[in-house]
Order: sequence, then structure tokens, then C-alpha cells
Amino acid sequence: MKQKFQLLPPAEGALRVAKVQEQMRAAGMGAMLVSDNVNLLYLAGRVYAGYAWIPAEGEPVWFVRRPVELEGEGVAYIRKPEDIPALLSERGMATAATVGLEFDQASHSLVMRLGALFPEAEIVDASASLRRARAVKTPFEVELMRRSGVMHTEVYRHIAPLYQQGMTDLELQIEAERVARLHGCLGLFRVAGQSMEIFMGNVISGDNADVPTPYDFAMGGAGADPSLPVGADGKEIRPGTTVMMDLNGNFTGYMTDMTRTYYLGDIPALAREAHQCSIDICRMFEREALPGVEAKLLYERALAMVRERGLDAYFMGHRQHAGFIGHGVGMEINELPVIAPRSRDLITEGNVIALEPKFVIPHVGAVGVENTYAITPAGPQLLTTAPEELLPLG
Amino acid sequence: MKQKFQLLPPAEGALRVAKVQEQMRAAGMGAMLVSDNVNLLYLAGRVYAGYAWIPAEGEPVWFVRRPVELEGEGVAYIRKPEDIPALLSERGMATAATVGLEFDQASHSLVMRLGALFPEAEIVDASASLRRARAVKTPFEVELMRRSGVMHTEVYRHIAPLYQQGMTDLELQIEAERVARLHGCLGLFRVAGQSMEIFMGNVISGDNADVPTPYDFAMGGAGADPSLPVGADGKEIRPGTTVMMDLNGNFTGYMTDMTRTYYLGDIPALAREAHQCSIDICRMFEREALPGVEAKLLYERALAMVRERGLDAYFMGHRQHAGFIGHGVGMEINELPVIAPRSRDLITEGNVIALEPKFVIPHVGAVGVENTYAITPAGPQLLTTAPEELLPLG
Repeated sequence: MKQKFQLLPPAEGALRVAKVQEQMRAAGMGAMLVSDNVNLLYLAGRVYAGYAWIPAEGEPVWFVRRPVELEGEGVAYIRKPEDIPALLSERGMATAATVGLEFDQASHSLVMRLGALFPEAEIVDASASLRRARAVKTPFEVELMRRSGVMHTEVYRHIAPLYQQGMTDLELQIEAERVARLHGCLGLFRVAGQSMEIFMGNVISGDNADVPTPYDFAMGGAGADPSLPVGADGKEIRPGTTVMMDLNGNFTGYMTDMTRTYYLGDIPALAREAHQCSIDICRMFEREALPGVEAKLLYERALAMVRERGLDAYFMGHRQHAGFIGHGVGMEINELPVIAPRSRDLITEGNVIALEPKFVIPHVGAVGVENTYAITPAGPQLLTTAPEELLPLG
Repeated sequence: MKQKFQLLPPAEGALRVAKVQEQMRAAGMGAMLVSDNVNLLYLAGRVYAGYAWIPAEGEPVWFVRRPVELEGEGVAYIRKPEDIPALLSERGMATAATVGLEFDQASHSLVMRLGALFPEAEIVDASASLRRARAVKTPFEVELMRRSGVMHTEVYRHIAPLYQQGMTDLELQIEAERVARLHGCLGLFRVAGQSMEIFMGNVISGDNADVPTPYDFAMGGAGADPSLPVGADGKEIRPGTTVMMDLNGNFTGYMTDMTRTYYLGDIPALAREAHQCSIDICRMFEREALPGVEAKLLYERALAMVRERGLDAYFMGHRQHAGFIGHGVGMEINELPVIAPRSRDLITEGNVIALEPKFVIPHVGAVGVENTYAITPAGPQLLTTAPEELLPLG
């Protein structure tokens, strides 16, 4: 019943390891011991319970606790992390003078436990190296994101007809979730860090769009319960309001991020102007987000467009404002680069970026679009191609 | 637009703080600074971006970054955690000689950053104190769990008729997810620690039940993608197999955990015997899980029943076995106590425990039930009351 450990094409697996090793050498790190599920998925192409030992030069060792019955190059079963040092020396692998651990992903308890395995080594942070490697997607990863974008776009085609008179925001969201799942959406919405939580995405309408949330998402909403205070609040969708749908795009382990806005009845010109401004900011980004451009300049360009049209009071929220208009996306929803005023990131070929210039119009709701782009040498390529205009529900 | 910070009844909020303070005094901790969303939800009755300062004696201070516009007793807005020491001394509150931080929940980076706020203090682990306090639910919490159990049970009433000929496990799961959401399921499935991930629960059928997973759940399954290798694999449900449904029971911020097993066509006597054994283990637990009993004794009693019937090869898995048959449940799915061979936990009034004696029968699927119980002075009270027998689909 043995199963192959390696699921990635060998060249792809090697490329990802090489990308991380390049970051490690730049940081002067001799080896890293990786434990985070998402970083393991990146490096090994599968989630497993265990650890990956990545030396700055040479082949990784995959230390596996579960599942049982895997085999492949570099696989070593362990019962506990304390088994690792002996297994490394059995393989003739020296541990390093500097060992990286994931300070931002691993709990303090785990870093203390793993650090104690290497009493001679200096323990340093591996999170930044992994984050930087993952920010530049491989062509294989971009292809998976393109596939997510195709399915994600297909789902949005089905949303408007789901509306039936008298529906609540939550009822519409639930029907959209079902359509997404039937199209292959995996449901799981991976967020780096512990402060942001979300289920299958956000749907907000009317006044609820202006309710501040604790989470660092661009969208508000009271949610249905104080235990998850974000998004739909279960109120009926009223004529004269918009419904912003920002739904989970995880179809391949990689997520695209897409938002479209719908409306019921007549909505004021201000909402339509703000929505058009969002679309225009996307067009600006498509022209200007070339490799080498500073991310913060794109934020400034967007903000200038917003100010020119007198819309700044509504931009990225009204009672509470988000501090960014775009973010890297991949296996997690909040990767590098960040499109924000103090970002030090440069746009780089291989980045995949979600741009979400949104507005909250009091008593009407949120408007705007969000698109995901793969950055090519020629500029951003759009992965989320559903129609951008305000769409009537029903 | 100010909103009240306090959402809990005042006596309930005070009781939770007092329960944590009792643990702190037993551990010799002078104060703790809490950052984890779930621990904040427990203490404050709401999720917010920020920190809670809990002195071993006296009133908490709620340090809030987001959402804006909250007000209430003990609320202090901060921009960053480094603002905390000055705000404490403004309030005439000394910091403590021993400050607890959540070593198991907070990242190493965060513990280092927060620890640096208290250069004079000894920094100790707060996770165990919080975990122990939360393991004994208040009557208010038990009532929320009872409500989750009622809704969860109602959802299971609707599952069998959802089946249509030719459906895959995933299609059946998606229809069940929709019914759960329409009945108020919040969707979010909170798991303590970073190693377990799940979407809305697990549905497994036939051979897929015997596929080992990396996660420490009692159930297997390949999943639909290597990025989430657990549960339904998208294959058609075949006659002669069982379908085990272990669906998310988070209706109130508190989850009940319930599993029921369905079947299609004729299934072998072995599967029926194992299913009956699971039900009988639940009856044993209902008689014997009295306050003061050692959790490991309950595991041993269950295992003896399994061995007596010659079912040990299938118990808690077949190719891969889970090491526990029950676990505390509350805001997270994996709380204390643990019903496992080496558990040192005692059953305590106020525990809420999910018991899941399950079996994997090769080529047939998983059988058994899972129930959630509130421990009262008179023993376990069943919160998940859907019929336990094997049910035909359709």
C-alpha cells in the first residue's frame, strides 16, 4: 500500500527548493527546518505532518510523522522531532551553524522545541526567506492560479440568477457557495498569521458594508455572530443597495481573489461613479504595474485618481479604512507584495497580485471590483475575467 | 456610531475572567497578555484585533486596535502593542513580576515582541492556564453548545433524502453543507494549533475511508486535492459501501461534534457489528463518564469492548489509527480533556466531550457514531440526539 511521496513534477519540486535555497544563502542561513503546513505544501507539493530539512546546498530531507506508508527520495519517518538530529547524522548530513525556523508561523513553543534540537547552532528566522521565495511564483504555480481563475470566473457567471426576491445576503451567499463548491472550490481559505479568519468569502450589502470589523480585510460587515464578526449579517437585501461578492477562489490549492458588485433597484450616481473609479484604477494598474515598479507608487497613483474625483471619504472603507489596495496571493490570501503607502516591495515578474480598489457608500453598500493579476515581463495579465460592470441581481 | 464593547452578560464575562485568574494564581502568574482570537473571544465575548491584559487580581484592560468606535469599561485603543506599558501605568496598574503569554497560540515573533514590553518580568506560558479554564464550560457556554446541538441534530434529519443516485461523496457533502448553512451553521471550523486543517467537516465512503491523512483527525480520506488531503475524494458512492458524515456543528461560536453513518445497498455483517459496538461504547460512556473518573480509564473500557468483539484491527482506523477516541470541544474542536491511553485528564463537571468510537472496514467504509456530551454531576448529557442507527441513503 506504499504511496509515492513526491507528487510534483521533479523539475518543479527542485525549482521551489532552489528558490528557497537562494534566499537562504542571501540571508546567510545554513539550513532550515520547516513545519508550517503551507510552507511544506510549497516545498514538498503535499501537506504532511512532519518537517522539511532544507540545507542551503544539497537535497532536502522530508521527515514524516503522518500519513503512514509514503516512500520516496529523502523521506525519513519520525515519531517526534527529537528523532531528527540522529537521522541527519546517519545520512552524513551535518547540521548547520545557522538554522532557520519559521518565527512568524510556528508557535513559540514549537520554535523552542525545535531550536533545542540544534544546541550548537544560531537559530534565526526562516519566515522571511520562505515568504520572499513564495512571492515569485513558478510558471507551474501561475498555471494553477490561471486554472483557479477560470473556475472562479465561471462561478461568477452563475451568481446574479441565484437571487430571488426577499433573499437575505446570507441566503444569496449560501447559494453562491454551493455553486462554487460544485465547480470544484475546495472551500478552505488559507490566511497567513492568526489574526484574520474567514469562511468562504464575504458578501455585504447596504449599511452592513460600513460596519467596522476586527480583521485586516478590505471589507467590513457585522457577520452573523460575534464569534466571526465579518461579512453578511443575515438581513434582507433591500432595493437601492449594492451587494458586493468577494468569494473564495481556491480551486487548486492556489487562490485567485475576485470581487464583483451587484445591485437591486435604483442606486445613486455616487455609487456608480465610485464603481467606475475602481474599474479605472484596475486599467491604470494594468498599464503601470511593470516589473521593477515600486508597489507604493501604484498605491499613490490610485489614491490620486480617487482624490481627483472627490471620492476619498469612501475609499477602502468609510467608518474604518483598510490600509492597502492590493496584496500578493497564492496558497494564502495575504502574500507579498503589498500595495500600500509604506510598502517597500517592488513589482516582480512572477508575482500574482490581487488589486481591490473598493469604496463604501453610506446606506448604499460597497462598490468596486477586485482582480487577480499575474505579473509578466509585459505587465499584469488578468486571471479573473468576469464582467466588471455593476450587475443587476435576479 | 459608538458600539458597546461588552456583548456578554456582565456576570458571564466576570465569571470567565475569574476562572482564568484562578488558574493564573495556581500557576503563580501575576498577569497575562492575551492575543489569540479564540482566547479573546472567550474572555471578552468578541473577536477583536488587539490584546487583553488580565491581572491575577482585579479588572482586565481590553487593548483594541480594530474595530474602531468601541467603548466600554476597561477599553483602551492602541496603535501597536508597544503602547501598552504606558497605558497600564496611566491607569495606575503595575505590570507583574511574572507575565504570561500564549506560547502555544502566539507565533515566536509575537512572543518575542510582546515579551520585550515587560523587560523586568519573567515571561511564562499562559496557554495551559487558558486551556484548563476553557475546558470547564460555564452554564452559559453549555447553553450555547446545547443550542448548537439542537441545530446540528436538525441538519442531520435532512441528510439521507439529499442523496440521489449516482452522486459522489463530494456532491452529497455539498448539499449537506448548504442545508447546514441555511440552518445557521457559521461554517468556520476552529482548530487549535496549526497542524490540523478542515473545511466544513468530512464525508467518507468506501475505500477512501482507509486512506491515511496527515491530520490528527479520527477520520481518513484522500480529499479532493493534495493541498487538503482529508475527506471526500469526489468518487461516486457505490452500493455496498457506507458514507460517514462528520459535519461542522458551529452554530453559536461553539461547536458540537456529531457523526452519523449511512449506507447504500447491502453491507456486510462486520460493518453492522462494528457500528453497534460504537453505539454500545457511547452507552458505556454515558454510564461511566462521571466527574472524577480518569479519562484514560474510559479509553481502556472502550478498547476492552472492542477487543471482546474481535474488532481491534478496525478500531479508530485500519491502515492508520488515531490515538484517541474522544476530545473536549467548545469554540475549538480539540480542547481538553482527551480520551486517550496516556491522558492525565480527569472528567470534570462542565467538560463538554465529543466521543467518537469509529471503525474502518476495508472496502466498505467507516462506521460508528460520534456524540457530544455535557458532563453534569449526574454524568454525561447528550447534546447530539439524531438517530444513531445505520441509515439508508435516499
